[in-house]
Amino acid sequence: MERINASIGFDKRLYAQDIAGSMAHSSMLMEQGIISREDGQKIQEGLQTILREIEAGNFKTDPKLEDIHMHVEARLRELIGDPAGRLHTARSRNDQVATDMRLWVRDTMDHLDGELADLIDALLSQADAHADTVMPGFTHLQAAQPVTFGHHMLAYVEMFGRDRSRLRDARARLNESPLGSAALAGTSFPIDREMTAKALGFDRPTANSLDGVSDRDFALEFLSFASICSMHLSRLAEEIVIWSSAQFRFVECSDSFSTGSSIMPQKKNPDAAELIRGKAGRSAGAFNALLMMMKGLPMTYGKDMQEDKEPVFDAADNLQLCLAAMSGMMRDITVNVDVLKAASGAGFSTATDLADWLVRSLNMPFRSAHHVTGTLVKMAEERGVGLEDLSLADMQTVEAGITDDIFSVLGVDNSVASRVSYGGTSPVRVREQIARWKQALKDMAK
Amino acid sequence: MERINASIGFDKRLYAQDIAGSMAHSSMLMEQGIISREDGQKIQEGLQTILREIEAGNFKTDPKLEDIHMHVEARLRELIGDPAGRLHTARSRNDQVATDMRLWVRDTMDHLDGELADLIDALLSQADAHADTVMPGFTHLQAAQPVTFGHHMLAYVEMFGRDRSRLRDARARLNESPLGSAALAGTSFPIDREMTAKALGFDRPTANSLDGVSDRDFALEFLSFASICSMHLSRLAEEIVIWSSAQFRFVECSDSFSTGSSIMPQKKNPDAAELIRGKAGRSAGAFNALLMMMKGLPMTYGKDMQEDKEPVFDAADNLQLCLAAMSGMMRDITVNVDVLKAASGAGFSTATDLADWLVRSLNMPFRSAHHVTGTLVKMAEERGVGLEDLSLADMQTVEAGITDDIFSVLGVDNSVASRVSYGGTSPVRVREQIARWKQALKDMAK
Amino acid sequence: MERINASIGFDKRLYAQDIAGSMAHSSMLMEQGIISREDGQKIQEGLQTILREIEAGNFKTDPKLEDIHMHVEARLRELIGDPAGRLHTARSRNDQVATDMRLWVRDTMDHLDGELADLIDALLSQADAHADTVMPGFTHLQAAQPVTFGHHMLAYVEMFGRDRSRLRDARARLNESPLGSAALAGTSFPIDREMTAKALGFDRPTANSLDGVSDRDFALEFLSFASICSMHLSRLAEEIVIWSSAQFRFVECSDSFSTGSSIMPQKKNPDAAELIRGKAGRSAGAFNALLMMMKGLPMTYGKDMQEDKEPVFDAADNLQLCLAAMSGMMRDITVNVDVLKAASGAGFSTATDLADWLVRSLNMPFRSAHHVTGTLVKMAEERGVGLEDLSLADMQTVEAGITDDIFSVLGVDNSVASRVSYGGTSPVRVREQIARWKQALKDMAK
Amino acid sequence: MERINASIGFDKRLYAQDIAGSMAHSSMLMEQGIISREDGQKIQEGLQTILREIEAGNFKTDPKLEDIHMHVEARLRELIGDPAGRLHTARSRNDQVATDMRLWVRDTMDHLDGELADLIDALLSQADAHADTVMPGFTHLQAAQPVTFGHHMLAYVEMFGRDRSRLRDARARLNESPLGSAALAGTSFPIDREMTAKALGFDRPTANSLDGVSDRDFALEFLSFASICSMHLSRLAEEIVIWSSAQFRFVECSDSFSTGSSIMPQKKNPDAAELIRGKAGRSAGAFNALLMMMKGLPMTYGKDMQEDKEPVFDAADNLQLCLAAMSGMMRDITVNVDVLKAASGAGFSTATDLADWLVRSLNMPFRSAHHVTGTLVKMAEERGVGLEDLSLADMQTVEAGITDDIFSVLGVDNSVASRVSYGGTSPVRVREQIARWKQALKDMAK
Repeated sequence: MERINASIGFDKRLYAQDIAGSMAHSSMLMEQGIISREDGQKIQEGLQTILREIEAGNFKTDPKLEDIHMHVEARLRELIGDPAGRLHTARSRNDQVATDMRLWVRDTMDHLDGELADLIDALLSQADAHADTVMPGFTHLQAAQPVTFGHHMLAYVEMFGRDRSRLRDARARLNESPLGSAALAGTSFPIDREMTAKALGFDRPTANSLDGVSDRDFALEFLSFASICSMHLSRLAEEIVIWSSAQFRFVECSDSFSTGSSIMPQKKNPDAAELIRGKAGRSAGAFNALLMMMKGLPMTYGKDMQEDKEPVFDAADNLQLCLAAMSGMMRDITVNVDVLKAASGAGFSTATDLADWLVRSLNMPFRSAHHVTGTLVKMAEERGVGLEDLSLADMQTVEAGITDDIFSVLGVDNSVASRVSYGGTSPVRVREQIARWKQALKDMAK
Repeated sequence: MERINASIGFDKRLYAQDIAGSMAHSSMLMEQGIISREDGQKIQEGLQTILREIEAGNFKTDPKLEDIHMHVEARLRELIGDPAGRLHTARSRNDQVATDMRLWVRDTMDHLDGELADLIDALLSQADAHADTVMPGFTHLQAAQPVTFGHHMLAYVEMFGRDRSRLRDARARLNESPLGSAALAGTSFPIDREMTAKALGFDRPTANSLDGVSDRDFALEFLSFASICSMHLSRLAEEIVIWSSAQFRFVECSDSFSTGSSIMPQKKNPDAAELIRGKAGRSAGAFNALLMMMKGLPMTYGKDMQEDKEPVFDAADNLQLCLAAMSGMMRDITVNVDVLKAASGAGFSTATDLADWLVRSLNMPFRSAHHVTGTLVKMAEERGVGLEDLSLADMQTVEAGITDDIFSVLGVDNSVASRVSYGGTSPVRVREQIARWKQALKDMAK
Repeated sequence: MERINASIGFDKRLYAQDIAGSMAHSSMLMEQGIISREDGQKIQEGLQTILREIEAGNFKTDPKLEDIHMHVEARLRELIGDPAGRLHTARSRNDQVATDMRLWVRDTMDHLDGELADLIDALLSQADAHADTVMPGFTHLQAAQPVTFGHHMLAYVEMFGRDRSRLRDARARLNESPLGSAALAGTSFPIDREMTAKALGFDRPTANSLDGVSDRDFALEFLSFASICSMHLSRLAEEIVIWSSAQFRFVECSDSFSTGSSIMPQKKNPDAAELIRGKAGRSAGAFNALLMMMKGLPMTYGKDMQEDKEPVFDAADNLQLCLAAMSGMMRDITVNVDVLKAASGAGFSTATDLADWLVRSLNMPFRSAHHVTGTLVKMAEERGVGLEDLSLADMQTVEAGITDDIFSVLGVDNSVASRVSYGGTSPVRVREQIARWKQALKDMAK
Repeated sequence: MERINASIGFDKRLYAQDIAGSMAHSSMLMEQGIISREDGQKIQEGLQTILREIEAGNFKTDPKLEDIHMHVEARLRELIGDPAGRLHTARSRNDQVATDMRLWVRDTMDHLDGELADLIDALLSQADAHADTVMPGFTHLQAAQPVTFGHHMLAYVEMFGRDRSRLRDARARLNESPLGSAALAGTSFPIDREMTAKALGFDRPTANSLDGVSDRDFALEFLSFASICSMHLSRLAEEIVIWSSAQFRFVECSDSFSTGSSIMPQKKNPDAAELIRGKAGRSAGAFNALLMMMKGLPMTYGKDMQEDKEPVFDAADNLQLCLAAMSGMMRDITVNVDVLKAASGAGFSTATDLADWLVRSLNMPFRSAHHVTGTLVKMAEERGVGLEDLSLADMQTVEAGITDDIFSVLGVDNSVASRVSYGGTSPVRVREQIARWKQALKDMAK
């Protein structure tokens, strides 16, 4: 029973939050005259001592004392004696642990927000360097139309940008203080919940004490954010793995993020990318575990809720590792510009440009445009050349109305340059988006 | 292959969104001079005809025509001939289907937001009616301290309020138009994406065409919202099931939301509550299915993404059913006030009030207060009475400092009235929160 | 309420099982003298009539009559009057629905077992045709050592073979009859549960009536099987997608299982493979939904359990589609033998063969063998040739002990032929395994 | 990168399996003459030394040495020098880690099988003690018909019995040795895979080397077993929580498995039950994480697969804790026989017995039997007595055919005793099942 009950093995990570919560609570108790200044000061000095002891590594844990809260409490009693008991006035374990966990998740969110900013910065650097680098744009892993590498990087910037946005919304919703909900019903002591909320950086106290002690939405919403963000990481990781294959050779990971073979010089395993991809399910697993735990729980606190911690810790640790590894890997990555260019021109990838030109410039119906394009592709295929290598005269044998202007959309650089619609792959659009995102990074850092 | 490929069986639900998207697109094509006014008008009249046909039930589907988009396209060609082909100018199936799905999810979100408002309203009605009704406040399904039924209802109002907040954040993030991303790279036609975005009620066009066609975050975020909301529903449903048991008898569901037995008059199965609870995992299952589908998908569109629809439809349908059933059930529910009151007084549930009074009024250390309380509880237990039934003289034999004021916190009504901290269970606080929420409902309805 | 309560929309699929269960039950009631022969015969004739009506499509459903069981019951009463009521003797809805669902899942399992056999057969055909076809064996999507295409196919045969084994274990565990558990406690009628169990093809009756009506393990175990099997399918699908890319060109899907582009002849989207991969999460989502539904349910039947059906139906339908599509796709697939061969020789893929030869034949320690191999690889790399293209003399400048025998392991065919350990990729081993599996298919079909 | 790459933090748990695998492999290498006896013996002595060092706690780990396999390898080289390198002959990290993990999971399965046997034994003890103790049998948490507590315990015995059966099937499927699959393709060394398989307790070697290194089905199947077993535990835990409530008072947990309140003597929080229930989602989360990791992985080994360990370890640890806690809790639990009896008689719980008697003894149609029963229930309700308290004369005023025999099924003891159908709740049937299970426990322990 002791083994299943004890949470000190994992909740010791909450020590800083627990002490911060107790500092805020004891300040308020003094201010409101609920405990004496003298007792309050002893409590606060004791808490600071304990914080120093833990950070110096001089703090022993004992499974008998179940959790971090009891450890701090017991040590405080050793240090200052009876006044230690006053700290618990108008507070219960239920609101205390809910407060600690919110503080921990909030700190983690802030840290991950920084990691996401760093990853976006890394992707923007590559986008900047490769705003003009053409590459095949894929659907179904089949080259469909040429795009730029910069444009491709920006697709992920959008994803991770949404992740930050989701994270910040979740943070705002989390940022209410359950402290003062007491065991479940509030308290008859004249406490000031606004004061403790403010001291701990919360926007306001929670509005219902039953909900305050039994709500774990903030943990679930964090895990949902982490699940979606991990999925984004898995997509980029998958591309790195595929692009690193001998068959693609689009990119090369640096030695720090891959492992080679002493006797097979071409083999370079994209280990970091695979680990990131492999960790994609961790947050989702944690989300499931926590959701199933909460399913059907009657009000208010149940011991079940102790199970909120490990899944959240695990997901947070893994996501942090993945974001840092991805940033490093993407900063270091070598882009094989020539391979990308060659690949982007293969397979008559500008055939749709040609058809679009016919519709746009000759006002041809789509069906006819497709028919003409198909005939020209066949001609080029038979000659073993690209569409842009056919002469105007050749083309006019198929469709007399074709003019010299057709060459402005053939060839991958022309194709890419022509796609100037908002959000399109044209380098001019790509650079606009890079600028917008660089500004956004600065604005969000404030 | 036809069977696995065809999506018309489920994506026909997108017909209204598909036609709305085509209306906006064709208007823009005309406005930008990409297609002629004449063709554009034919297209729009044709689309309106199809809409009427579908809504009148006069539209045949055919698995060979795969999906709703091709059905509309094929019918348009039947109706207006060649100009039908012009509708597809500067658009592809990829951005079209992404737009349709966003519109559908957005409509659904708006509908569910209304259902949530209705449920909150139902809970507020019960809270209002029972702001003073005392009941046991539970932790671990053990009565801990008395609370009010109104306070309990408000805990769920907080939860469903957070759900609305989450839904609205998700809606804001969803509300960008992928239309104009074309196949994946944008287009060289001089389209106006702002215009189509505005016509369809989007805040702006998406900023990256690759992301525009391959992003399904909005579906995942919707399912995450639905999972958490379903979990909240499951908690309330569990309480209704427990409270309806012969052992608890706290509430009684109306005949519309339960089934009885002709020969066992006391038996009343809380079927609706059980169904709501049983559906808690549906959204989470859908979230998992979709997340696993997206895991490791390289850019951009893959046929895998066709799998986004059924899980979203299923989760939306089930959540809608559950919210409506819960609202109805909660409006109809009978609260057994006397049973609640009797239960809330059992088990010396005001013992903590007594201990708190000793700390607060006599400045007694916690340990001593607990010792005194324990002795008084034992005294009451031996006499078979409640704490409030002991005389002042009796109490003073244990602790001489106790005064008449002690009775202000004993008895469940006094106990509840004393918990006036912000968010506490005191009726005065409960009424404040009811008023705040009623105002919020009005503000959000604007 | 009617909408959330009615299950006829989906449980009508159980009609055949429901009628079979009633046939077996009524036979037993007659046999045991619990109902008269006359009543029993009327019941059975009525049931047969209903079965014919349903199969002929002449059976109207009505949401007011909730589920398939009540539909059959109501129709039976219309057809034969009062004796219809006798059918319900010593039976309740709880054991009836549990029986029906087991029968449906069992039928589905048998069907899927056949589909798996068919898929294994398709893979064996390809393995047979390509037992000698060399291809790169990948780790980390990097070519590591040459293998044969046949060997690669057999890896999947092993997976789907385990799936069949899992399915059959699950079927054996499912195959107990809950009929006769009555509402939950068994019955005082002198029923013969062995008789109904036998009539319905069950191995025995369930041993505890409470468990009989509230157990859904068989559904969960089915979904777990389906989740793992779907994951296997997703791996093969992923390989088909990657192999179909212009960069790999290892295989080509037939036109029935891919879609091309009229104007981009090289583009061939592996739609079927993507759909199969995209459906990988459906069963897992269903497993989660069902597990979450069952979590924390007290004994015995709760209305929550009605939620077992849709997830199971959805997973079964999707898996059936995927298996059939995969079989068809794999039978039709074109293997580009020359491309595979060329790819398998690239990157000094036999370097480990060389190193192993040095260890094996010269008893060289691993480190030295690696050093020698590395030097030879460098030599070949500088000359732009393969290892097998170096002369013996060249090799002996690096390590004097090398003999002519070295060439027996260089070159991809030799490399592959040398790996004769049990389960290894040597064609001789591959053919042994093909033979073993063909025999197993026959044995299991009996 | 080092942080994301290193697995030593968790895979050190595999040390015993890793060394056992290396012992078996080196014995085989000697036996086959692939390495010399001398080298082989040095290797084996070195491995034994390392095992002793680890078990004595004298083994330092270093994140630079990534995983347990490299730690053992490095230490072996320190201890015995060059011959250490020979150990890696005809083996690669890929088959080594697959073997280690299978061994660990198999050991864990065996341990959990023992824990399950212990839990079944605990439940049988309670079933034995309470084979005659009547209690309400619930559907929808509404008392439906009386059952016995022993019968209720046996329902869980059935569930945990199925868990053992599932576990054993999974073990049998796992029990093939991947050792000798080498990197992925098998090897050209003359190894004997049967010999290593046998030495490690495997039934046979795996039949395909590609599958051998890339299969993680055994981990998934273990997690699926664990998920279903955890769900069973959650149901029993939920019942304990509900039964421990002041409203039910059916059972009382011992002080070892609950926590009380010094000042609220009746309050007893069923902490162990709640923790067990709260952990229900852990295995399911792990199953999801692992399944998502495997989704879409191409052959063969990818670094992603390193992610198989932590979820499996976490699920195994938690399940082990839960099973042990549940066994202890159930052995210690106090059953409030009188409360159960009183509850089982409330609500005219034998009304169905009465109706069944009318059908059975008077051959009355169901409808009429229900009508008569309803009238008698109303009569009893009006008089405030139970059905068994009505006189025969009273009953005959409603239905003249009723005889004295009616009393044989009225009253909860009679009701329970009458349900003698196989698997029914009659004490005689319950005792038969207890005997069957006791025998099964013995048979399975062999």
